[in-house]
Amino acid sequence: MKYCSNCAAELHIAIPEGDNLPRHICRQCDTIHYQNPKIIAGCLPVYQDKVLLCRRAIEPRLGFWTLPAGFMENNESTQQAALRETREEANAEVRLLSLYTMTSIIHVNQVQLIYLAEMDKPEFSTSNESLEVELFAEDEIPWEELAFHTIRNALQYYFEDRKTGTFPLRQIELQGTRYNRP
Amino acid sequence: MKYCSNCAAELHIAIPEGDNLPRHICRQCDTIHYQNPKIIAGCLPVYQDKVLLCRRAIEPRLGFWTLPAGFMENNESTQQAALRETREEANAEVRLLSLYTMTSIIHVNQVQLIYLAEMDKPEFSTSNESLEVELFAEDEIPWEELAFHTIRNALQYYFEDRKTGTFPLRQIELQGTRYNRP
Repeated sequence: MKYCSNCAAELHIAIPEGDNLPRHICRQCDTIHYQNPKIIAGCLPVYQDKVLLCRRAIEPRLGFWTLPAGFMENNESTQQAALRETREEANAEVRLLSLYTMTSIIHVNQVQLIYLAEMDKPEFSTSNESLEVELFAEDEIPWEELAFHTIRNALQYYFEDRKTGTFPLRQIELQGTRYNRP
Repeated sequence: MKYCSNCAAELHIAIPEGDNLPRHICRQCDTIHYQNPKIIAGCLPVYQDKVLLCRRAIEPRLGFWTLPAGFMENNESTQQAALRETREEANAEVRLLSLYTMTSIIHVNQVQLIYLAEMDKPEFSTSNESLEVELFAEDEIPWEELAFHTIRNALQYYFEDRKTGTFPLRQIELQGTRYNRP
């Protein structure tokens, strides 16, 4: 961030009055340009005893498996974002059951929300964002080929919690370990 | 958003290839400037049978009562943000118990996270951001002078859930009703 998006003048970095963190501030119009974490919303879709995974068609982690999830947009709720991403990436319709994992991925300034979700029918297909979309039983999960640590966490929690049938919200803080590299 | 923060050229609005929403795109360097919801993190601090509220010293809703909460910063977790805001606004130390309300405030592109929290001691004070900080029993809550609908919701849920002693995560979608105006 080098120039003011409001007036095109150069920015400088300083701590505004009454604040305690350095911000990008315009030298000309004094606009303060804050930078804040972004939300990733998605879901863990379950059909019978299987979960739905997508093989990424885009970077980062092209070719690795993930749960359907992506950046939350303006003008939608977290639930709407999770449903939209599941449609866009897997062409699947799901019912959200509960918020299941909330991960602060501190070093990339993201908060990832994964909802537990149910599919009524095994209907899904590939998309611009997914090379393959498939249902996996627990012993079929490609653990070494998962894209992100957050996805491995969610799946591990799910298969653990499935034994008891209770799925409490899991809150996780990740620092410095975004990709799932065995 | 009128100018590119990367090169200062003018922006135009168009749907990028492979996308389905209009974005701000630079005419010169082609950078796409995404806009996404921001996270507000805070808590509902409880001391014995009372909850801690702050009277806002800043706009919006200056003079109205709120729970300590504010914009999550980069390089922190949602929990760290909630604790930091409670220190900044009320000079209070709390222990977070559980995520209690998650509200998508759709028309202002915010997601508000309120944690249920406990105070070990009744220690707190005013700050640059709070004209007054006080503990309120249920029958003392200034319902007509609360700043935001989200705060009223959280307090109503809390006093309802306190009867049973279970505090499940409440997920709320708000549209067009940000301020608590009786």
